[in-house]
Amino acid sequence: MTELLDQQTGVDGSPGRYRLVDCDVHPITKGGMGDLRPFLSRSAQRRLGLDERRSLSTVGHREAVSIPRNLLYVNQSGVLRDDARAPDGSAPGSDPAFTAQQLLDGNGIDRAVLIGGEVLGLGAMPDPDAAAMIASAYNDWLAATWFAADERYRGYLVVGAQDPAQAAEEVRRAGQDERYVGVLLPLTNILMGQRHYYPIYEAAAELGLPVAVHPNSGEGIFRTSPPMAGGTPTYYVEWHTGLSQVFQANVISLVCHGVFERFPGLKVVITEGGLGWIPDVMWRLDKNVKGLRDEVPWITRLPSEYLVDHVRFTTQPMPEPRRRSHLHTLLEIAHAERTLMFSSDYPHWDFDDPRHVLGTLPAAMRDRVQALNALETYGDRL
Amino acid sequence: MTELLDQQTGVDGSPGRYRLVDCDVHPITKGGMGDLRPFLSRSAQRRLGLDERRSLSTVGHREAVSIPRNLLYVNQSGVLRDDARAPDGSAPGSDPAFTAQQLLDGNGIDRAVLIGGEVLGLGAMPDPDAAAMIASAYNDWLAATWFAADERYRGYLVVGAQDPAQAAEEVRRAGQDERYVGVLLPLTNILMGQRHYYPIYEAAAELGLPVAVHPNSGEGIFRTSPPMAGGTPTYYVEWHTGLSQVFQANVISLVCHGVFERFPGLKVVITEGGLGWIPDVMWRLDKNVKGLRDEVPWITRLPSEYLVDHVRFTTQPMPEPRRRSHLHTLLEIAHAERTLMFSSDYPHWDFDDPRHVLGTLPAAMRDRVQALNALETYGDRL
Repeated sequence: MTELLDQQTGVDGSPGRYRLVDCDVHPITKGGMGDLRPFLSRSAQRRLGLDERRSLSTVGHREAVSIPRNLLYVNQSGVLRDDARAPDGSAPGSDPAFTAQQLLDGNGIDRAVLIGGEVLGLGAMPDPDAAAMIASAYNDWLAATWFAADERYRGYLVVGAQDPAQAAEEVRRAGQDERYVGVLLPLTNILMGQRHYYPIYEAAAELGLPVAVHPNSGEGIFRTSPPMAGGTPTYYVEWHTGLSQVFQANVISLVCHGVFERFPGLKVVITEGGLGWIPDVMWRLDKNVKGLRDEVPWITRLPSEYLVDHVRFTTQPMPEPRRRSHLHTLLEIAHAERTLMFSSDYPHWDFDDPRHVLGTLPAAMRDRVQALNALETYGDRL
Repeated sequence: MTELLDQQTGVDGSPGRYRLVDCDVHPITKGGMGDLRPFLSRSAQRRLGLDERRSLSTVGHREAVSIPRNLLYVNQSGVLRDDARAPDGSAPGSDPAFTAQQLLDGNGIDRAVLIGGEVLGLGAMPDPDAAAMIASAYNDWLAATWFAADERYRGYLVVGAQDPAQAAEEVRRAGQDERYVGVLLPLTNILMGQRHYYPIYEAAAELGLPVAVHPNSGEGIFRTSPPMAGGTPTYYVEWHTGLSQVFQANVISLVCHGVFERFPGLKVVITEGGLGWIPDVMWRLDKNVKGLRDEVPWITRLPSEYLVDHVRFTTQPMPEPRRRSHLHTLLEIAHAERTLMFSSDYPHWDFDDPRHVLGTLPAAMRDRVQALNALETYGDRL
């Protein structure tokens, strides 16, 4: 990063405390759900089949409990970077110290915001109580292992959105640890604008925590419906190309339901949801709400203004059009100077190198994307 | 239109035979399914409950058969222009002569491509034989009533895609009438890349007919899944904003399945599917296929090149960003000079006036969008 940063002006002397913040880094457990055992009550251990009667293997079918995963598609390269494997041979992304060295030291990253890799699919669990138990234990595991290992780690606390009241309690409980800078909402098959989620939004707004979503939540697991409109995609490449639809749908839902009028302090972070669709959704919303405003009288502003004020996006996967000017027009329309935050998606196969990504941005917005927008979004906790 | 056309150069002397082609006009029946009775065999009449034992009322619940419609959402203005009502008081868009006067004469339109308004939902009928009977009868009704009324009408023949073999037969039968310039494919819950549809594509390519899709097909009717990714939208404005997802998904599906390699002569027309998402889908496909090409080895070109060569889009609903330059960048990325064709969506509530829409285009591509691209797509039949 050094060369890149040296070319910039205003970064070191800027109001920001950091030069580079990575808003999407995935910690992985070494031993699967068994790692959570120390953070579960005895009764919760028994309820989840994680008590001492079980041998806790990482082989899925030997575990009594597993969090649903999107297992329908084959990525021939696997989904984790082989070179991110821990020195002791355990899974890529499972060693906090090695990740700190490879990702943070190696790229000059001042803060990494952790998003639980294995709890993304929590929203697809049918049992709301099991989901809530796992969420709490996972949050305590993350603090005890990752936050404790390096002071540059921050993270999202995860909730089981199946039971919004329990989820709101968990926001208030785990959120007391200020290293949690946001709430990860593993989506269910209910769109984000719906009243179901309001207790969670209320708790998050109360604590000043943004609510983040990420692919491979319930929507990727076919609990009730295909992950793209119109039918079930056949190939990984097809699913991976269309996964942004879930985020388009949820942004539309949030705006149309007036969530940002009801929770003026709420921010939503679309993580790994893509950027190219932002102009389309902004324009369609602005046009349609003008024509159909009687249906949604609580919308008092241009919908695109809610997006700019309340929704944040992370860079990875960065669009790579052939002409750089096309990317810059997209970023201008999306008000990226306020809405975009850098992310690498480490240790996933499609990791974005900050050297490359930041170099594709207009110089005038680079310091905002690499750190300042994250500071505004996550606040003092970062 | 006259003022606008007079300002242009190259249109009258251009290779095109027409100045303005409208690629999305909806004929409506005067009396519902009962209008099809003369075009059904006696056994088909009985099978569909349309024989003389029935009183053929337009009131839905009195009909034995009705084509599924998206009835979940309320558009407070209705979905048809009141001022398009026929002089005899029957439904807007139901009088071919009045439509010719109001729409064609009134706007200087040389050719209007008709898309059956009431058969859009045919893909949601569970019974493939019932769908096939209705499709054939509808095609004959359209020729006998609308094509016969004004020589400026062209149209899409409709098929019941539930039974691809029967649908291919219908393409070859109805397609003998050269006033049919394409095939309307009412979507089911199967994405367009899947092998299910190949007999239809084969027949269409054989006759040189593009295959068109349009909102409010099976995907809008919840036969098996919500019309947006991630869950079921609550409001009409939400559904209407997100309806482009079905077309994003289907373009992704067509490219990933290699349909355009298998049917090099095939063209697909995305009607009323929006434009703002084209850059996003192009960029994501180009990037993802590079990283995951082992999964789809039949893709031999950049995915965006398939789009430019094989997929066509209609203008309505035209994006209306605040800055005109943003629209022009979108059109440049989408290669609109080759891919975009004018449409009004008459007589629907969100009709686009050609005077306005064509005025928002860069002058250099105006004649292509208003007529030449349609001539290339539909060929001599237009």
